[in-house]
Amino acid sequence: MKPNRIDSQVILDEYVDVRAQSVRLCSPLNPEDYNLQGMEDTSPPKWHLGHTTWFFEEFLLKPYLKDYKEFHPSLQRIFNSYYQTVGIPFTRKHRGMLTRPSLDVVMEYRSVVDQEVARLLSDIHGRDTKILEILETGIHHEKQHQELLLMDIKYSFSLNPLFPAYDTKPRMIYPAADELGWLEVPPGVYKCGSTSDDLFYFDNETPSHRTYINHVELSNRLVTNREYLAFIESGGYQSFDLWLSDGWNLITSENIQAPRYWIKSDHSWSEFTLHGLQELDLNAPVSHLTYYEADAFARWAGARLPSEHEWEIAASLHGGSIPMDHSEAKRSLNNWYYELWQWTQSSYQPYPGFKPNPGALGEYNGKFMVDQYVLRGGCKASPSNHIRKSYRNFFPSHSCWMFSGIRLAKDIS
Amino acid sequence: MKPNRIDSQVILDEYVDVRAQSVRLCSPLNPEDYNLQGMEDTSPPKWHLGHTTWFFEEFLLKPYLKDYKEFHPSLQRIFNSYYQTVGIPFTRKHRGMLTRPSLDVVMEYRSVVDQEVARLLSDIHGRDTKILEILETGIHHEKQHQELLLMDIKYSFSLNPLFPAYDTKPRMIYPAADELGWLEVPPGVYKCGSTSDDLFYFDNETPSHRTYINHVELSNRLVTNREYLAFIESGGYQSFDLWLSDGWNLITSENIQAPRYWIKSDHSWSEFTLHGLQELDLNAPVSHLTYYEADAFARWAGARLPSEHEWEIAASLHGGSIPMDHSEAKRSLNNWYYELWQWTQSSYQPYPGFKPNPGALGEYNGKFMVDQYVLRGGCKASPSNHIRKSYRNFFPSHSCWMFSGIRLAKDIS
Amino acid sequence: MKPNRIDSQVILDEYVDVRAQSVRLCSPLNPEDYNLQGMEDTSPPKWHLGHTTWFFEEFLLKPYLKDYKEFHPSLQRIFNSYYQTVGIPFTRKHRGMLTRPSLDVVMEYRSVVDQEVARLLSDIHGRDTKILEILETGIHHEKQHQELLLMDIKYSFSLNPLFPAYDTKPRMIYPAADELGWLEVPPGVYKCGSTSDDLFYFDNETPSHRTYINHVELSNRLVTNREYLAFIESGGYQSFDLWLSDGWNLITSENIQAPRYWIKSDHSWSEFTLHGLQELDLNAPVSHLTYYEADAFARWAGARLPSEHEWEIAASLHGGSIPMDHSEAKRSLNNWYYELWQWTQSSYQPYPGFKPNPGALGEYNGKFMVDQYVLRGGCKASPSNHIRKSYRNFFPSHSCWMFSGIRLAKDIS
Amino acid sequence: MKPNRIDSQVILDEYVDVRAQSVRLCSPLNPEDYNLQGMEDTSPPKWHLGHTTWFFEEFLLKPYLKDYKEFHPSLQRIFNSYYQTVGIPFTRKHRGMLTRPSLDVVMEYRSVVDQEVARLLSDIHGRDTKILEILETGIHHEKQHQELLLMDIKYSFSLNPLFPAYDTKPRMIYPAADELGWLEVPPGVYKCGSTSDDLFYFDNETPSHRTYINHVELSNRLVTNREYLAFIESGGYQSFDLWLSDGWNLITSENIQAPRYWIKSDHSWSEFTLHGLQELDLNAPVSHLTYYEADAFARWAGARLPSEHEWEIAASLHGGSIPMDHSEAKRSLNNWYYELWQWTQSSYQPYPGFKPNPGALGEYNGKFMVDQYVLRGGCKASPSNHIRKSYRNFFPSHSCWMFSGIRLAKDIS
Repeated sequence: MKPNRIDSQVILDEYVDVRAQSVRLCSPLNPEDYNLQGMEDTSPPKWHLGHTTWFFEEFLLKPYLKDYKEFHPSLQRIFNSYYQTVGIPFTRKHRGMLTRPSLDVVMEYRSVVDQEVARLLSDIHGRDTKILEILETGIHHEKQHQELLLMDIKYSFSLNPLFPAYDTKPRMIYPAADELGWLEVPPGVYKCGSTSDDLFYFDNETPSHRTYINHVELSNRLVTNREYLAFIESGGYQSFDLWLSDGWNLITSENIQAPRYWIKSDHSWSEFTLHGLQELDLNAPVSHLTYYEADAFARWAGARLPSEHEWEIAASLHGGSIPMDHSEAKRSLNNWYYELWQWTQSSYQPYPGFKPNPGALGEYNGKFMVDQYVLRGGCKASPSNHIRKSYRNFFPSHSCWMFSGIRLAKDIS
Repeated sequence: MKPNRIDSQVILDEYVDVRAQSVRLCSPLNPEDYNLQGMEDTSPPKWHLGHTTWFFEEFLLKPYLKDYKEFHPSLQRIFNSYYQTVGIPFTRKHRGMLTRPSLDVVMEYRSVVDQEVARLLSDIHGRDTKILEILETGIHHEKQHQELLLMDIKYSFSLNPLFPAYDTKPRMIYPAADELGWLEVPPGVYKCGSTSDDLFYFDNETPSHRTYINHVELSNRLVTNREYLAFIESGGYQSFDLWLSDGWNLITSENIQAPRYWIKSDHSWSEFTLHGLQELDLNAPVSHLTYYEADAFARWAGARLPSEHEWEIAASLHGGSIPMDHSEAKRSLNNWYYELWQWTQSSYQPYPGFKPNPGALGEYNGKFMVDQYVLRGGCKASPSNHIRKSYRNFFPSHSCWMFSGIRLAKDIS
Repeated sequence: MKPNRIDSQVILDEYVDVRAQSVRLCSPLNPEDYNLQGMEDTSPPKWHLGHTTWFFEEFLLKPYLKDYKEFHPSLQRIFNSYYQTVGIPFTRKHRGMLTRPSLDVVMEYRSVVDQEVARLLSDIHGRDTKILEILETGIHHEKQHQELLLMDIKYSFSLNPLFPAYDTKPRMIYPAADELGWLEVPPGVYKCGSTSDDLFYFDNETPSHRTYINHVELSNRLVTNREYLAFIESGGYQSFDLWLSDGWNLITSENIQAPRYWIKSDHSWSEFTLHGLQELDLNAPVSHLTYYEADAFARWAGARLPSEHEWEIAASLHGGSIPMDHSEAKRSLNNWYYELWQWTQSSYQPYPGFKPNPGALGEYNGKFMVDQYVLRGGCKASPSNHIRKSYRNFFPSHSCWMFSGIRLAKDIS
Repeated sequence: MKPNRIDSQVILDEYVDVRAQSVRLCSPLNPEDYNLQGMEDTSPPKWHLGHTTWFFEEFLLKPYLKDYKEFHPSLQRIFNSYYQTVGIPFTRKHRGMLTRPSLDVVMEYRSVVDQEVARLLSDIHGRDTKILEILETGIHHEKQHQELLLMDIKYSFSLNPLFPAYDTKPRMIYPAADELGWLEVPPGVYKCGSTSDDLFYFDNETPSHRTYINHVELSNRLVTNREYLAFIESGGYQSFDLWLSDGWNLITSENIQAPRYWIKSDHSWSEFTLHGLQELDLNAPVSHLTYYEADAFARWAGARLPSEHEWEIAASLHGGSIPMDHSEAKRSLNNWYYELWQWTQSSYQPYPGFKPNPGALGEYNGKFMVDQYVLRGGCKASPSNHIRKSYRNFFPSHSCWMFSGIRLAKDIS
């Protein structure tokens, strides 16, 4: 994590914005929803609100605000996600058991910490850079949790046979997709990863390093529900030769026949969305796929998934600038950054020369660099100012509760 | 289930009372608590409130109130516990996922059903007896859930490292126990089970039947925490010869060293209670034991657990009358009915000549008559008017979230 | 266990016979078969050969033959089944991993122990009674393992798609069954359990005690495959109301549609037997049922399973004498003792006044007295001289690899 | 797979050699050992003997030898490992259940197939190239299984408390290791993967492609037991900051404190080997590590694991020629190819432009390209003529029953 901005007022404004946005995202929830945990991978909304606050308390206020008095000692363990450096975290899969502290206590916790952060910022001196760095890291950490919050609510709501709607406004309907086109990346040595010119980045995006890209082309847009439905209807889920062995084992043992949120009734398909159960929009990009499904579709389509380096260079060459506004008006299948995270065939490994952050924040990224695959881009649930070309998202191959989709690649030989 | 009272006003008054009591029992809860499910065996408070209401809607209003309009079709599946006759119930272990319907919807459901039940009762004719029988069954069903509600809250709260208190009033402290004495049952043929003289009973308590009791004596009071602690301190949990083989496997594989809610810190013992974490009261009866623990203690004490028939006859001979008031003032280790359920060594089987109720209510008891053990008596969490000599409670041998304790037996030879 | 015979030559002859019989039972096996363990409940034949030998070494030779030299120290743990008193047994489910010691070593172990037992018997004095008691217990222990050996081989062979035949001789074909008749037991107090008149019994058959039997009748023969097939064809496995709740969960979650060894191909049924895969003999008694299946069939047939006391008294009144010869010539559905073990609805509990044997042999029976159901009778795989009216076999409700069948009971009211 | 040799006599000689070698490797086994399966990942020796034979029957004799008569239809399913194209394979974890077909039948199967392969080879014409290609693939396939055979025997024997020795000759003792040195790879674009100059390669080694290597150096030898013991003794298994998160979860939940085959008794370490339980040789290379352990050690040592491309280029520059003879005389920690497989940090993915083989053999490699990590080099159990610079071995990160070790890498910045 490396913040370049040093104006403490600017960063405090951003802090205030992001903190308010987390609360705003929870406004459609009823009290019970705040405590809902659909599976071990997801967390209750209340926990997200508490944990993001704990992050500032633990890493900023406790070490840097001299007379700071801990809000309540018992929250230390409850809201620690995985930082072994600062104690043994509460068992992840039991977060849904934490009906106490009550929501009002957590909101008070947020309020107290916000006041104390403002107090700290009002009077910073020599240790400024470090403080601002941690503050900026905490802001980006909370943005990550805002996206997780929406992923988690969607998943947890999907288990309810009432199919609750998080968002009661009408959903966006996509226009018909352009024909699939291909964007070339000439072979050669390229530079990848984040550089000091970026305003902010996580440690896992560094160091900037050289890589060789073989001759390849990437599709100019995401794969649609219509295309994925054609894959299903052609027998895609019954054809073992399209699947990685682990994927085939998964779909046969769990009887998976379609993406996670698709539901077939009689002869029509619906999709569970944040707007509740909706008719499947054939023009929308296919989403919530596992790595196995993305890979199988690509094989069926005579293509493959891109590597993360191929993706990054193709995005540089063809992806255009990153929109600051990702409202529906601007939404498009052709967008590289704000529609869906795109699976790559790259496992999540350290870049050559990678050095994790020092201290407890070193646990942030590096220790997850095994048995996960990188997704690139961003999604409609990603907060603004939280997307960049070098951003490395990562999930295990069987995961599908994130907003994941497919951009294809093809070798040119 | 067989109700003998035929005065519809009396029974409606009882209905109103029991319905109000369920809501009252939830009053110490915060909104998130209403949705808390600590494990598959337990249910969230909101679900108990909905399910007990569904019982009246499904078995009383739908068949007997001609123009009754179902409150909401989707609740049919959600609040069905296990009645296969009336559809496929929602997966038990996922009840904690049901943040919707919201609490206010469930409270409205209760209110509408209560009004409709009153309307049905205000105008009953030829089918009266059947209606009153079902109503009375529903009332007793809801009383069972009131006890479950407290068991479940206790269990679920115990998973929270904050150890929340359900009841913030000071807990009762027990006086020192009397020395353990023995109450004789002379050998001979006895009659057991419920008879038509009882006001109400479940089908599993019938038919009344003869049984032979060998010469035996039962202890005059429950085993105390002090006595159980002596068992622990003498190495009880490390002595395989005291344990049934399955029990030994359980305590060694799960590293169990004490009853479920006991916590050792440094050299003192605490116990999690509905009043939060409390110093262990050595004079209180030891509670929340598995069958294995009760059996091992009995063996260590040179005794055994009684059979359910032995218990019933001993209670007839020595148990006195069943108190209508089981307030703290009357509480005593010597009480047979209102302190703790007492494990018996009898597996839960049909009595000779047993016939389940007809229709869906036939699923109430009979289908659970395997791989469970009978507990007799009642407990402090049992509603008043819900205890009788012939009552058969039943749980699997590894369960301990109910209020279970030990009364000993000894063969006289 | 209580042997009454005191002539050491008689008992030594019996020892020699039973030891030879164990080896003879293995003669159809190929070398790999000796090490085959189909599931955790079963053991490899070689292990049975070693364990029965270990029993004599551990409980007879080591304590009573003064200069006895242990065959090999490492076998102590490997061939201990579950006796915690004499050390930590090797993990049961891994017995199939024990390709070493090799079969020839185990055969040598048998031979050495046999010689030493003969040496011990040739010169017994004051401790005679105890020695003869243990010897007799070991003989009966080995007989139990002879039956287990056949159960285990059948189960393990059934997992092989080649369906190997243990016995290559033609199987017995049953004549058409008599019509089902009923045998009455008048109500009253009866005496059950073993008495000192019996030549041998296990501790769990004692003490002899009184019991009250309500008016009941038991079927005069076992249920046939034809009758069970009618249950299947009438939709028995699809009718939840016929099943105990746990049984319904088992058959639906594991998709069970017929007894364990039945196989349907096209429209005909076969059954895996010790003679390999065979056409289903409709006149043979239905076998290898779980408690749940036996209970569901009984309910479908308008009957129930008998209690173990009802069975024992009915066998006394109507069962005739126990045949010494249970060859095919004598085989009949009407036989109480040598056809199939018959499920009772009695859970396996201690009799009133039960006292386990002292010492390590006290682990033999008592510690399994929970969560199991009693089967009575005996089966075609039971060794001769190993069947008696009071014999209590026991298995968990889901088990079906033993030779279990159904005798029905009906209340007379 | 691409064989370049076209002389059918040469290839038949190689066939005869490899077939004889498989049988020879089994010669120290007793009959029961042939059927031993220690876990799902491993297979019984008899199964290896049958499966490698099935490979030739299924892919060579059935399609290309016109009048070939299948040895026995039931073996088709039993000895199919995972080729969905040719039917549903027998459940992997139950291979140890297959005591039938007996060993003598399997040996006859081998003999018949060998004769038929010789007959096919004696008269080949137009389809020659294809036949020779498949034959060569089958030969290399059997060599892979020879290594698996030794891995599997070692694992399965390790579960036996008798610690059987596969090899009763004295094991090799390593001389003291050289001080660790570093071998530089200058940054730049390199070519990796197999080329048509190689005599044989699998499809996963192709196509040859360019890659950019950043400035790096690799250690000149493998890590020793002495060095790994220092890691343990410094608290390596108790320091979460050294471990990937998944690795930390694994070692804490399964209480792992040392490599798989190390055993501590009192204060000395032993290691289970193919020679039985032996004193730990501190100069030998540390082996049987998971990816997590290799990665944690590297972090502790201030280094990291190399990528597979870094390894391949470093081996080209510094690895010397591949020895044809990997007898003990030549064994050395410095060897790149014949000591232990070396974990790389590269997940197993297709090379750019990868195309699997056509037909059923296309299932050979490509479908496993997810959630596994590449190991490079070879090991003492690898058959001669089966090692090459471009060979990609692969296992999941938690696996350790293969002969895996550590070669370190360091970024030069």
